[in-house]
Amino acid sequence: MLVSETLGFIAALCTTLSFLPQVIKVLKTRDTKALSLSMYIVFVFGVSLWLVYGILKSDLPITIANSFTLLFACIILFVKVQNRKQDKLS
Amino acid sequence: MLVSETLGFIAALCTTLSFLPQVIKVLKTRDTKALSLSMYIVFVFGVSLWLVYGILKSDLPITIANSFTLLFACIILFVKVQNRKQDKLS
Repeated sequence: MLVSETLGFIAALCTTLSFLPQVIKVLKTRDTKALSLSMYIVFVFGVSLWLVYGILKSDLPITIANSFTLLFACIILFVKVQNRKQDKLS
Repeated sequence: MLVSETLGFIAALCTTLSFLPQVIKVLKTRDTKALSLSMYIVFVFGVSLWLVYGILKSDLPITIANSFTLLFACIILFVKVQNRKQDKLS
């Protein structure tokens, strides 16, 4: 495997898995106050496009990496939106 | 421009710019409690690798997109680390 391919693989692994600690923290603490709602809305949209891009290009690494990132980002976004609804009710 | 290229461009724009609202929120509120330190450490490392990958491949979109993402993620990480130091002192 070329140096650049190895680098790209490790980079994809890191930027994908980096969202896992944030998911765990959000599910444990339910605290999303400091998280930006607009960041996660735009990010989820962008990652969805990357997923479609990967499928169109039949690029397995991009498809797999962005499927996980999308899953993690959607969980964070879901808890953030839930908290905002509860804040409005109270 | 091919459909997939256009999609990739918009995806890169979204996933890059999505961090800007989080930077603004962190600089305004100085609140980073809900943000995961390990997420941003791993993410900054991963994005740095994407930047090196883009330079090695002379891929301008990947290089430019990840330069901005790295800048935004480093600002967030810096404020998060600063807050942790202050928490330890108090």
